[in-house]
Amino acid sequence: MKQNDSLRAIIWRDAALHLLDQRCLPHQHTYLALHTAGEVADAIRSMVVRGAPAIGISAAYGVVLAARTAYAQDAANWRTLIQADMQRLAQSRPTAVNLFWALQRMNALFPLLTGNPEAALEAEAGRIHQEDLDANYHMGDLGAAYIPADTAVITHCNAGALATGGYGTALGVVRSAFSAGKLQRVYADETRPWLQGARLTAWELLQDGIPVTLLSDAAAASLLSTGEVSWAIVGSDRIAANGDVANKIGTYGLAIAARYHGVKFMVVAPTSTIDMSLSSGREIPIENRGKEEVLNLNGQAVAAPNADAWNPAFDVTPAALVDVIVTEKGVIEQPNAEKMAALMGA
Amino acid sequence: MKQNDSLRAIIWRDAALHLLDQRCLPHQHTYLALHTAGEVADAIRSMVVRGAPAIGISAAYGVVLAARTAYAQDAANWRTLIQADMQRLAQSRPTAVNLFWALQRMNALFPLLTGNPEAALEAEAGRIHQEDLDANYHMGDLGAAYIPADTAVITHCNAGALATGGYGTALGVVRSAFSAGKLQRVYADETRPWLQGARLTAWELLQDGIPVTLLSDAAAASLLSTGEVSWAIVGSDRIAANGDVANKIGTYGLAIAARYHGVKFMVVAPTSTIDMSLSSGREIPIENRGKEEVLNLNGQAVAAPNADAWNPAFDVTPAALVDVIVTEKGVIEQPNAEKMAALMGA
Repeated sequence: MKQNDSLRAIIWRDAALHLLDQRCLPHQHTYLALHTAGEVADAIRSMVVRGAPAIGISAAYGVVLAARTAYAQDAANWRTLIQADMQRLAQSRPTAVNLFWALQRMNALFPLLTGNPEAALEAEAGRIHQEDLDANYHMGDLGAAYIPADTAVITHCNAGALATGGYGTALGVVRSAFSAGKLQRVYADETRPWLQGARLTAWELLQDGIPVTLLSDAAAASLLSTGEVSWAIVGSDRIAANGDVANKIGTYGLAIAARYHGVKFMVVAPTSTIDMSLSSGREIPIENRGKEEVLNLNGQAVAAPNADAWNPAFDVTPAALVDVIVTEKGVIEQPNAEKMAALMGA
Repeated sequence: MKQNDSLRAIIWRDAALHLLDQRCLPHQHTYLALHTAGEVADAIRSMVVRGAPAIGISAAYGVVLAARTAYAQDAANWRTLIQADMQRLAQSRPTAVNLFWALQRMNALFPLLTGNPEAALEAEAGRIHQEDLDANYHMGDLGAAYIPADTAVITHCNAGALATGGYGTALGVVRSAFSAGKLQRVYADETRPWLQGARLTAWELLQDGIPVTLLSDAAAASLLSTGEVSWAIVGSDRIAANGDVANKIGTYGLAIAARYHGVKFMVVAPTSTIDMSLSSGREIPIENRGKEEVLNLNGQAVAAPNADAWNPAFDVTPAALVDVIVTEKGVIEQPNAEKMAALMGA
């Protein structure tokens, strides 16, 4: 399946980072042009761009912009001057490890560069972007091999072209399975509070002509009880060394309901999402976002204004509830620390 | 705990039915005055009033209005003429059995009446209303006995004063446990798509000064994993003869997650909610509502406008996942067909 131009979340053009403003989808399709690392950090924090791989790619381009600023300020000391911007990018969101992975990869290049670093860093960011896209195509095929014929699947949040360098992780598997003629329908949890499923996944799949049905997150267990769905397929923001998976809030409940009904559970993520420094999911930092996301829906107040709300953006699904982790380096069934270490060559 | 006047969903006054318009809560607190059975049926269908016991009580008052109309039209044939309105009321919503229970109880009086039936039917509807309120107070005490000290509970949808004759079923237990000094906090699922938790439960508990924290339905599993919550407490729209429980969509997923974490699961419902004619929950008719409830909120589109959506309003939790059913006739632990029959005197 060819990359659909309207689904490109990240475009580097005319020496600037152009991000599709995902806060306005599906009703408006507009790009913001960013020229400084601070603007990129703000865009990540405010969710102009979201999805762990897309955050990592955006941060890499942010480093290009940071280097340009630092080099213009003082060509001899750009490596020192850039550190404040590196910090700003690192502090934009805490859970998706792809952000830190991309910053480290860019940072590792600094000592090797001479003269103006911009062109070399731009090339490296472009490689990170292209490698993510290539990984998604490969993972799409690896994951689709597990999907039986004439079936339906369910997904949570948006792990699609919009969340990655293109094609998608979970939705890459969906696209490959659909291209292979296996998929009758994709059920998409609407994914409160930010409604990534309603606003992004449904719109993204409709662009590609893949049959999609939205449901309230709370209806998923009822759907799984019907037997129509064979697999739940999700992305990830960080995978610990034992195979525990952090992903959008609601993933854990979906995994529990899937296991209860004998529905298989697949996590699709590039190895840039794997954090071998954390022994289990308990160590993954979970971002708590403002209560206004729960008290409002699309900016419209839905609850008593003085109500309290708890709004963790992610949860952790233990490896024991995961049937398959698909990465671009290969697939792990029934993940555990040993298999994770073998995959990562540790 | 005394009945809070602002939480009265149903008021019979000046020979008319006054319903608190729950579609406009919590931002507006207005009553609609209804003078015909057709208006009552429309109010039930459009969810001016909701909650199984409240629907039953409203329908009973609707029969009073229907009898007035029929008797004025032809005093000799009111029992025949009223049947069209009885049908309209019966067809307003399919899942809550309290509706049919109330209509049958009113209908059973028809052969016994002479002359103008209005006063006798008004008295019977008033008894149904008062008996529901009394049942809630009694169930509140029975259920609260199960709640340990210094704990938090979670509830789904709104099974409160607004859903009943007053005080509430699930929230009646919450009120009694809070009065007894046992409850630190109530977590309330926001309950998409209609947001009964955000719009009604949070507002209702704030009126009574009970600490309440809203969360997205999808965050419940994560909350249960913390160990802070000892019980999930919900109402019901229909309970089958084997103890299977129909309730607001999302209840089933909450029950699965509760069992997975060792959190106890309590259903609180008057015996008017029990349908001994259905051997299991598989026979309970589940209302499917329009996809616009998922695609929109208050007329504001949140999803791609041409997206499909699945919107079952209820789900069925099997008796095996229920620890306790609390009724005004007594409590059943680990419900099954035998215990249900014993409670109902069958």
